[in-house]
Amino acid sequence: MIDSSLLSSFRAKRVLITGGLGFIGSNLARALVEAGSEVVLVDSLVPEYGGNLANVEGLEGAVRINISDVRDEHSFRHLIRDQDILFNLAGQTSHLDSMVDPFTDLEINCRSQLSILEACRHHNPEVVVVFASTRQIYGRPQFLPVDEGHPIAPVDVNGIHKAAGEWYHLLYSQAYGIRVSVLRLTNTYGPRMRVKDDRQTFLGSWLKAVLSDEPLTIFGDGRQQRDFTYVDDAVQALLLVAARSDAWGQVFNLGGERPVSLLELAQVLVRVRGGGNYQLVDFPRDRKAIDIGDYYADYSKIRDGLGWQPEVPLEEGLARSLSFYGEHGEHYWNADI
Amino acid sequence: MIDSSLLSSFRAKRVLITGGLGFIGSNLARALVEAGSEVVLVDSLVPEYGGNLANVEGLEGAVRINISDVRDEHSFRHLIRDQDILFNLAGQTSHLDSMVDPFTDLEINCRSQLSILEACRHHNPEVVVVFASTRQIYGRPQFLPVDEGHPIAPVDVNGIHKAAGEWYHLLYSQAYGIRVSVLRLTNTYGPRMRVKDDRQTFLGSWLKAVLSDEPLTIFGDGRQQRDFTYVDDAVQALLLVAARSDAWGQVFNLGGERPVSLLELAQVLVRVRGGGNYQLVDFPRDRKAIDIGDYYADYSKIRDGLGWQPEVPLEEGLARSLSFYGEHGEHYWNADI
Repeated sequence: MIDSSLLSSFRAKRVLITGGLGFIGSNLARALVEAGSEVVLVDSLVPEYGGNLANVEGLEGAVRINISDVRDEHSFRHLIRDQDILFNLAGQTSHLDSMVDPFTDLEINCRSQLSILEACRHHNPEVVVVFASTRQIYGRPQFLPVDEGHPIAPVDVNGIHKAAGEWYHLLYSQAYGIRVSVLRLTNTYGPRMRVKDDRQTFLGSWLKAVLSDEPLTIFGDGRQQRDFTYVDDAVQALLLVAARSDAWGQVFNLGGERPVSLLELAQVLVRVRGGGNYQLVDFPRDRKAIDIGDYYADYSKIRDGLGWQPEVPLEEGLARSLSFYGEHGEHYWNADI
Repeated sequence: MIDSSLLSSFRAKRVLITGGLGFIGSNLARALVEAGSEVVLVDSLVPEYGGNLANVEGLEGAVRINISDVRDEHSFRHLIRDQDILFNLAGQTSHLDSMVDPFTDLEINCRSQLSILEACRHHNPEVVVVFASTRQIYGRPQFLPVDEGHPIAPVDVNGIHKAAGEWYHLLYSQAYGIRVSVLRLTNTYGPRMRVKDDRQTFLGSWLKAVLSDEPLTIFGDGRQQRDFTYVDDAVQALLLVAARSDAWGQVFNLGGERPVSLLELAQVLVRVRGGGNYQLVDFPRDRKAIDIGDYYADYSKIRDGLGWQPEVPLEEGLARSLSFYGEHGEHYWNADI
């Protein structure tokens, strides 16, 4: 599914992926193994996050798995040496958890990012770094669609720390010449995402619910608009910005084929599944306080500059996701991790 | 010098000032003592920062001094109880130090701010909080003068962390109803500032230099524009936003009477001093990498909304500063702290 000429530029490259046992990291790892890269996956398997050993089923022997935490500065200093590319994907992603425990979010999304970049600067200044940022840093959109020039104005602790994490990367590019690209991801979905709860995105929990014949829960009136990127498209973008020197020092939005309301998403999901239902419930107070309203991205910068666009339609992506969890679901909703 | 009807609203108020032995904190403390407030000053006297016991000379018995660090969560939880107002001024201010040691800047300007706000939320949710932010969060200005709607785009570690610190405050206002106001300070100067080096502002080191008959050092061509707020004007603004409920939840720029180039500032300082000279030197590489170019603020929001404007002209403020350090300089450039 990934462009083969793009893949060929990763042949024999040494690649480190933080969050490598997680959703996007493990899908990226599969593409890189296909490309012939030497892949090291760093992940600490924090139970509340996205890491899951089931994500690398079938990759045994083809990747090196290093169980460690990005908060562990010493091991990272060793791991980063001699790598050609760092895909820096590890992070705490739950907005609600970041409000309940802001200090853990700070450690992972700020402090660790600083120590990763310090390690690059001092021990591998030639490395190419791709950082996974998030649309959450924009806060409540002031205009739609949201382009990269939209003000940064996060409205929850996670958004604040991800903004800082992104700025560290751009600062180390500007001040020290580290070759960094940043992707601001929107809702990414597909096989190997966390589905046992909504810590990664609400859509994960919806996939589990619809396959378990439970109703999908929509907060509010369901008219909130969002955009969705299928994981293969996100992987394509990650590879692209790593391979293209004109992407270094740059920030790019990813996006979806079109804005979709949550109500429509629920209806599409039920239709693709061939059954199920959904319920509208009042916004819980803690979620309402940090809700961002409507969001969808203008991704014309990466489209016009690098030729990326979402290729997998929503219905197709949901069908593939349902098929994956229909087969492998037990490793995701019953797993301890 | 502070408006007396404004001062009267602080009579018998319990006020905590973090960074209370520092430059702005100690000047604020003097105004509050005059107003009849019960003042507690929290400061850890970190040698590289602005705290100096000479700053509270003459206030013995009129304020309570509590030597502790804002990184000390436990003591702060105790200190915040029963306070009416928190002026949250403690911070690491050196841009260059933040690049050399980003982790200390993170601890003070991010982690401590989070723990201070958590303490307010859990132990004193009625407290009024005023946070001292900085123009540094704007980064290199995209337009001049810079108003509060200018994008947040910091270009050094200190700016990144101060942006996070400001956002935490606004988030705790929005999500938990804490009554918070934010002032984005520009170069503040006057008696009791750190002058032994340029860690607080370069102007501090210039005051020392001109009084020591040493040349003022200007980086680059001296055409960089800046604005300057005399400390009494900054204190007036701090009191104003604490007293005015229509300031809560709001962010305000402070500014100076007019933009001044560094060359002109050096010339004015030499003229006011009645002697001295200056030299243009090439920008050191580490400073150039994080230089923000020209900056001056549009402060019309606080002027039109709350009636604040800078009252002390630059020449007058510099004259008062030189007079202060002429008399008390030994406690500032020879002091261990």
